[in-house]
Amino acid sequence: MLPRVVEIVERKREGAKLSAEEIDRIVLGFARGEVPDFQMAAFLMAVVWRGMDDEETAQLTDAMVRSGERLDLSRFGRVVDKHSTGGIGDKVTLVVAPLVAACGAPVAKMSGRGLGITGGTLDKLESFPGYRVDLTTREFLAQLGRVGIVVTGQTKELAPADGVMYALRDQTGTVPSIPLIASSIMSKKIAAGAHAIVLDVKVGAGAFMRTLREARELARLMVAIGKAHGLEVTAELTSMDSPLGRAVGNALEVGEAIATLRGEGPADLREVSLQVGAQMLVYARRARDRRDGRRLLEARIADGAGLAKLRALVAAQSGDARCVDDPALLARATRIRTLAAERTAYVSRIDAAAVGLAAVRLGAGREKKGQAIDHAAGIALRAKVGERVARGEPYAEIHANGRGEDEALALVRGAYGWSRSAVDRPKLVLGRITSR
Amino acid sequence: MLPRVVEIVERKREGAKLSAEEIDRIVLGFARGEVPDFQMAAFLMAVVWRGMDDEETAQLTDAMVRSGERLDLSRFGRVVDKHSTGGIGDKVTLVVAPLVAACGAPVAKMSGRGLGITGGTLDKLESFPGYRVDLTTREFLAQLGRVGIVVTGQTKELAPADGVMYALRDQTGTVPSIPLIASSIMSKKIAAGAHAIVLDVKVGAGAFMRTLREARELARLMVAIGKAHGLEVTAELTSMDSPLGRAVGNALEVGEAIATLRGEGPADLREVSLQVGAQMLVYARRARDRRDGRRLLEARIADGAGLAKLRALVAAQSGDARCVDDPALLARATRIRTLAAERTAYVSRIDAAAVGLAAVRLGAGREKKGQAIDHAAGIALRAKVGERVARGEPYAEIHANGRGEDEALALVRGAYGWSRSAVDRPKLVLGRITSR
Repeated sequence: MLPRVVEIVERKREGAKLSAEEIDRIVLGFARGEVPDFQMAAFLMAVVWRGMDDEETAQLTDAMVRSGERLDLSRFGRVVDKHSTGGIGDKVTLVVAPLVAACGAPVAKMSGRGLGITGGTLDKLESFPGYRVDLTTREFLAQLGRVGIVVTGQTKELAPADGVMYALRDQTGTVPSIPLIASSIMSKKIAAGAHAIVLDVKVGAGAFMRTLREARELARLMVAIGKAHGLEVTAELTSMDSPLGRAVGNALEVGEAIATLRGEGPADLREVSLQVGAQMLVYARRARDRRDGRRLLEARIADGAGLAKLRALVAAQSGDARCVDDPALLARATRIRTLAAERTAYVSRIDAAAVGLAAVRLGAGREKKGQAIDHAAGIALRAKVGERVARGEPYAEIHANGRGEDEALALVRGAYGWSRSAVDRPKLVLGRITSR
Repeated sequence: MLPRVVEIVERKREGAKLSAEEIDRIVLGFARGEVPDFQMAAFLMAVVWRGMDDEETAQLTDAMVRSGERLDLSRFGRVVDKHSTGGIGDKVTLVVAPLVAACGAPVAKMSGRGLGITGGTLDKLESFPGYRVDLTTREFLAQLGRVGIVVTGQTKELAPADGVMYALRDQTGTVPSIPLIASSIMSKKIAAGAHAIVLDVKVGAGAFMRTLREARELARLMVAIGKAHGLEVTAELTSMDSPLGRAVGNALEVGEAIATLRGEGPADLREVSLQVGAQMLVYARRARDRRDGRRLLEARIADGAGLAKLRALVAAQSGDARCVDDPALLARATRIRTLAAERTAYVSRIDAAAVGLAAVRLGAGREKKGQAIDHAAGIALRAKVGERVARGEPYAEIHANGRGEDEALALVRGAYGWSRSAVDRPKLVLGRITSR
């Protein structure tokens, strides 16, 4: 006899460990429309309350994967995916995916859109006019074979339970649960067919995980889920107290990613990209070790092969690839306003959340799902933490198109902290958790 | 600006104290169909998790009352209600309502149906063929004026938010929450127009509150809610480890209530009835104190006025009042099976929950809402805790109509515990919490 759904909710409410059968019943039942959303909502709140252990979370992930199709990418060799838990100015995918593909490792990535203060890779890529993010599974596979790189949106056939559960969580205050976050991320990655995954778990004021403790727990759980599904997984824990790089906003970030592929990007973005990419190459069996991986990636920056791969990616997905060589063709804001230092000082902090919110106010992000965004809007951080700015010199620019300009200006001004004495550059890589 | 519902859910999830405005928004919005059930379900689970303080619970109750109409009974003088949190064999209303009304205090009671192992007053009253439990508000008020007593079902106009919330709680595992239980009970009582309420909070194996600690907390909270609404409230905490009286099952219980009104009922039922009724008379200003109240009630048993009032109640609501004088006219089971003692011993316990379940299996109660019940089915406990039964003598009877007989027999047999040495009668009244 099938377990009754209300009894499953009650058992989780009492803090019990659920069986695989119970998890299947509620998750697959919900995905099929048999379990009503009000029962799922109560269940999700009970999970936020009581949590799930590793085994339950792996079962939950498995049920979500089995709710749809699972791609088989084995004909392409060892396919390595990467995923960031989201931050401000995080354009690592735009740098690392072409570099890794340029090293001969197939990169098949399904990305998401931005929501709230966190940007999304799809929005950034759409800064290339014409870039398609709605490839079919057939197109996805064909491009992976032909170009060796594909970055598109998730198809509806993959982990549909995650899609409907996430929409409900968003409406019911049940987002902040480490087992729910971990299973949501991992179910999509597993369904998308990756053999190994490098996770970039962001920690700090601009990230979902504010503390290293929470971030470690999320990372540990995602690695455990991956292991339970036979995947190799490494989680890099990287700082998101201040934004990554100097550009925040879609076209500005694309410009910065292109600069980085040319060897001219900011040090922190380059460092996180090499960190993530080196592990991807190890997992793809293209590098002996991480050190070898870094060396290969640096060579692909130096010889322009990474940039060429980005060009190929954009062209393959119908985007205007001329922008790769001439970023001036990307959308540009009508007004650039500059913030100048009131006195000579060192930047002691840049609050990533405030900068992210400023970008949203400018129209670079969404306040609600489905909203159109302004690809040109954003913020350029001319001074980063630890850098010295002389009185009257600019430290930030607001790229605006008639929306939210004053508010963004105030937010960015408030995001900066200053010190009379020299400030150390913050630590970027905070830890690593790996399946082996 | 109205608070966003998802933010209210999130605040309760974080353990925050909600404002009156927030509680109104979610409760009244849900009753009006503006707040979807999945948000209410998540909210309810967050309340089960985080609880509500006295002020929030009073606000919640108030919102539920304001979701519908509130009866004004002041033209009838001080109207006193009573409510039991539910137990096995609990027919106190059938005894105390006529007795109190016979003392000249108006009794206007809206009762419920049984669900699960707990019986309901409406089901019991329907053992009188023809008895109507669906009076309109107009009929309710007219009968109260004419007969001085009315016991019917709740009208849909009273606290409709409670009705829809309760239905959702039942489906989402969010029933066991003291603030939700307290506000559900009190909202109906307040909307029904009572000036004072005597609560009979049952404690023990056959009650919703298993421990005295939980029962005290529920009682304390209901008294506080009543006080906040200007009502006088007393909660009697009474034992529900073993069933109340000797009869369990609708017509059997009606027969026992009639016997009690004749002065021939079991001691425990009579005691709880006097306990509750005396306080009702004090609140109705018909007795100087509880002692005076008991004396008055005992006199109405002795002179038959209580029984006459039951007759008048049944007749007024179209029931067959001849049954009051000749209980043999009530529905009777086709088979009575007897359990006899295997050896001479004292009854050390009768597990109320097991007896309640046996009654449900016989058809005296419902496994699901809306199910028809068998008024004749039930259990007669010939021996109560502390009583001695000689080997071969009967200690219980199963009244069956072809349903669940063997299962009930086994359950009742298992419900009894035995001791070779004498056993004290259990304590019946465990405490009292009062608004003054």
